[in-house]
Amino acid sequence: MRKISAIGIGAGDPDHLTVQAIRRLNETDVFFVLDKGSEKQDLVALRQEILDRFVEQPGYRVVRAPDPERDRTPDDYRKAVADWHRLRTDVYETMIASLGPDERGAFLVWGDPALYDSTLTLLDAVRDRGNVEFEYDVIPGVSSVAALTSRHRTTMNQIGRPVLVTTGRRLEAGWPEDVDDVFVMLDAGCTFSQFVDTGLEIYWGAYLGTPDELLLSGPLTAALAEEIRTVRASARSRKGWIMDIYHLRRPAPSRI
Amino acid sequence: MRKISAIGIGAGDPDHLTVQAIRRLNETDVFFVLDKGSEKQDLVALRQEILDRFVEQPGYRVVRAPDPERDRTPDDYRKAVADWHRLRTDVYETMIASLGPDERGAFLVWGDPALYDSTLTLLDAVRDRGNVEFEYDVIPGVSSVAALTSRHRTTMNQIGRPVLVTTGRRLEAGWPEDVDDVFVMLDAGCTFSQFVDTGLEIYWGAYLGTPDELLLSGPLTAALAEEIRTVRASARSRKGWIMDIYHLRRPAPSRI
Repeated sequence: MRKISAIGIGAGDPDHLTVQAIRRLNETDVFFVLDKGSEKQDLVALRQEILDRFVEQPGYRVVRAPDPERDRTPDDYRKAVADWHRLRTDVYETMIASLGPDERGAFLVWGDPALYDSTLTLLDAVRDRGNVEFEYDVIPGVSSVAALTSRHRTTMNQIGRPVLVTTGRRLEAGWPEDVDDVFVMLDAGCTFSQFVDTGLEIYWGAYLGTPDELLLSGPLTAALAEEIRTVRASARSRKGWIMDIYHLRRPAPSRI
Repeated sequence: MRKISAIGIGAGDPDHLTVQAIRRLNETDVFFVLDKGSEKQDLVALRQEILDRFVEQPGYRVVRAPDPERDRTPDDYRKAVADWHRLRTDVYETMIASLGPDERGAFLVWGDPALYDSTLTLLDAVRDRGNVEFEYDVIPGVSSVAALTSRHRTTMNQIGRPVLVTTGRRLEAGWPEDVDDVFVMLDAGCTFSQFVDTGLEIYWGAYLGTPDELLLSGPLTAALAEEIRTVRASARSRKGWIMDIYHLRRPAPSRI
């Protein structure tokens, strides 16, 4: 039986790799890499650095495939997303089918594979089609949320209180009910700007764990929001891409 | 300057340790251990196993202190919690003050230090008192949330949708607004039982990553809720303690 692993490799710092992930890297015959275009060559290089550093006997193969582009301005949004999902499932199916019958393949996933990543969804979609037989497992990793909080030395939750992890698009609709701590992923729109001077604190980070890491935090004033937007835009234009995440906290009445 | 680290050591499997955590273990002079009473000797032993396995030159000291008991049936709940927090801050202050001026101390924290753990809050409280000077950092770890999802091979979020991490006590108030995926920590009351036959799936795990690991999942029927309660009660009575977590998912209309 072909074996596949989705391996969490942490948020950017190769030192986030776990003992379990390193062992699994060393058991892997084929690494699958989705090429997302030239703008993320830094991430491809970082992934290669992880392999170079941790794989002891470099007899592995790397199988690359272009990650299908999604139509960002479709007439029919749902159809565009479904088409894109089908194309990506095709790519995953083809890659997995390229494995020998007893080989092990792996997808290296930034952060933790469970959080805002499509690898597991696509593996399930390939399995549901039933054309290629394989079994798979998941190696957990240090998430970008954990990387962000560790660098700011903050907690995710206030004592006994809930935490929401959400997207910029969702946050646009307004501050969520009954929640004091919100982590926002995938927010090119800097939605935090909607909430200046409402008593929040912000903890922002980009390129976490890498030499390019950027951190900004403090009470969410108009000035700080503007500073984050400026720093973000400038880094993005300099490097050609950005991965960032932030935490908005409404300090609860008593912290104890 | 004294240095302190809060080191995330993963959810129970020693293989969750990261390269960064192992390096920091090896730089530590003194490990601080809070003794929570005999019922958790398993966890004390597991922590010692991690030190035995990963620390290469065992010249470290271990400083133990009793974790103050919290009054579970107080007349004045807020005062009882504040008193308990003050007593614990005293303990942390005393432990940190026992370090030599250039020594490094560490607290080993299950999972990730940011998620439902009081170590960082207590370190801030000691620092705010100003009696003992120290600096501290946080080493992120594999959280119990990541451990749970990896074992069930599930994602935290559905595509583009938010995730709530909360407590059993909070969930008692009802299903949260606008959320399809809820992770519940610290729920001795099996609050999931309130939601049987409402179209949810449950993914439950206890003693994650250890040889005693228990996993149950499926559509949240009355029968499955009863099975989880029974398995949980029996494991708890056999071992004297339990650490568990679960994920409730309301499948979104389209998973794509």
